[in-house]
Amino acid sequence: MNAPSLLPVAVTPGDPCGIGPEIVVKAWRDAPGLMQGCFVAGDERLMHRALSLLGSSPLALRVIGSPAEALQTPAGCLALLQVVSPVDLPPWGQVSGVAGRMAGEAVLWATRAALRGEIGALVTAPLHKQALHAAGPPWQQYPGHTELLQAEAARHLGVALADLPVRMMLASQELRTVLVSIHVSLRQALEAITREQVLQTLRITHQSLLRLLGRAPRIAVAGVNPHAGEGGLFGHEEIEVLQPAVHAACQEGMNVQGPLSPDTVFMRARHTGGRPGEFDVVIAMYHDQGLIPVKYLGVEQGVNVTLGLPLVRTSPDHGTAMDIAGRGVADASSLLQAVRMARQLSQPAASPG
Amino acid sequence: MNAPSLLPVAVTPGDPCGIGPEIVVKAWRDAPGLMQGCFVAGDERLMHRALSLLGSSPLALRVIGSPAEALQTPAGCLALLQVVSPVDLPPWGQVSGVAGRMAGEAVLWATRAALRGEIGALVTAPLHKQALHAAGPPWQQYPGHTELLQAEAARHLGVALADLPVRMMLASQELRTVLVSIHVSLRQALEAITREQVLQTLRITHQSLLRLLGRAPRIAVAGVNPHAGEGGLFGHEEIEVLQPAVHAACQEGMNVQGPLSPDTVFMRARHTGGRPGEFDVVIAMYHDQGLIPVKYLGVEQGVNVTLGLPLVRTSPDHGTAMDIAGRGVADASSLLQAVRMARQLSQPAASPG
Repeated sequence: MNAPSLLPVAVTPGDPCGIGPEIVVKAWRDAPGLMQGCFVAGDERLMHRALSLLGSSPLALRVIGSPAEALQTPAGCLALLQVVSPVDLPPWGQVSGVAGRMAGEAVLWATRAALRGEIGALVTAPLHKQALHAAGPPWQQYPGHTELLQAEAARHLGVALADLPVRMMLASQELRTVLVSIHVSLRQALEAITREQVLQTLRITHQSLLRLLGRAPRIAVAGVNPHAGEGGLFGHEEIEVLQPAVHAACQEGMNVQGPLSPDTVFMRARHTGGRPGEFDVVIAMYHDQGLIPVKYLGVEQGVNVTLGLPLVRTSPDHGTAMDIAGRGVADASSLLQAVRMARQLSQPAASPG
Repeated sequence: MNAPSLLPVAVTPGDPCGIGPEIVVKAWRDAPGLMQGCFVAGDERLMHRALSLLGSSPLALRVIGSPAEALQTPAGCLALLQVVSPVDLPPWGQVSGVAGRMAGEAVLWATRAALRGEIGALVTAPLHKQALHAAGPPWQQYPGHTELLQAEAARHLGVALADLPVRMMLASQELRTVLVSIHVSLRQALEAITREQVLQTLRITHQSLLRLLGRAPRIAVAGVNPHAGEGGLFGHEEIEVLQPAVHAACQEGMNVQGPLSPDTVFMRARHTGGRPGEFDVVIAMYHDQGLIPVKYLGVEQGVNVTLGLPLVRTSPDHGTAMDIAGRGVADASSLLQAVRMARQLSQPAASPG
């Protein structure tokens, strides 16, 4: 169990009609020690509705007036800060603009609180992208959490969006991977593999994991092609793009190896009880290269971490699961992992000397 | 333990200077019951050299005069058929044309024996591609086992090479995957994803697994792009190529689903003790898509199966490991899995109705 952060951690419930609110209350029920010092940045009636899914559970809800009060809330008591305008709640499972707006308001509040330094991290339960879009301006401009966070952070820092590159890290208990690109076609992903993009990914990864681990991370760069191109026999990206990027990163003092054969680099990085991995993180050249191994052992444990922002944000690696919302059967494991990761990333104790 | 096949199984020792001969003798030492009915198609002196790596092990070697005698050789006794011209053996770890020729001769003999119906299957320990190339004609024309097997089979059947398409299946104890393409760059692999290539892969997979399982296999087709393209948002191969190929395969009576999201389809197909997988095999669109999940849990258990040939051929999923050859430390697990798979594929009992 981690010691509480010095700053409270905000948990946003995500789409109010998805499984987000349910996994949030289950997190408090199942891991009261871990959740102590966290609070829900959301809506009181919504959380009461979610609590009712737990049946005769004795979990209490305490409405707090500021983030700091979360630190004084006893373990096993769900602290709630009302940060959205209360509305009539749409039913479980329904995709609506009303729900999208509630979800967006909570995330926006928590993002700003993190940028102001009032909270140590935000953990975001899943949004529904169509619901956010249906909420109209300003919500419809954001395809998802990451873009909203990035826009607010750029505004806060007074920089252009392009000057605040972010990367997605997926982490399970045995593997971490950072993706050079995410939701683009594989053909477009190949075009995005440039020396600058890879080096940018390496810098963001190095900085973030330095903070997480308290030491320089051992970074592996996966190749693009089978056997990392086998010396140019099966493709040239390794020679023309990846080797120069790795060389530049090493010149900057990072601990980077590669490009390595994609089919074995994830196995080599895998950290199990019996065998520590050779690397702390693998840079994946495209979405599925990294996500296939992270998800292979099951999606319950995967955590999504947004790297590159001046705040700590983690989220479970699954969606709103509208089809099972309100039934009390959702699994809170990934959210709990996301809270653990947020704690690790936001604890000053983990910073290097 | 499997019952012996009706026909003996030939094991070729691969490059005489790699770990092949060592893992072959270890297979006989560690799994005498499984290896009963198998024989080494190779060289007597080479196998004596390999036996000496076992130290004081009591494993006996019996020289046989025909494949059929392997079936009468008792368990725990290594049966050897001399099928190559004896030469002075190059030292362990050396890459040479002499070694390449010995390795090639054994594979050629076993291929022809399989095509003549004298053996039920061949299990091939790893070749060294440079050594095979250094052996000169006719060996240098073959980049590896598969091409040699394909050429001999086409000659035997009297058909053109192009009319004998083969596919590589990688199988671990929990996952099987068949690759649409293998050793080409990722860009070239994308070009190779055509309706005809995918449908060809489906037909070969269906026929081979029908034989292995004794029923129509449940086949999943992985997408090319993240989330299988998310309805055309991230790429069009799923709509333009894969959906038509899957439709055609279903029309032909195969049990095929897809295209499915690549990042979860392997997890869904994973077969563990506690949970049977949703599919018997996943068609992977490129080398690393399939090999990353198969290798993620460790390469020791992976087996390579060549599908599409009029013979059964399996091999361990690793190379010659020249750097550790002759030291007695090589792991025979993958070879043993390859023998098990060869037995399953060649047993008439496994054939449907």
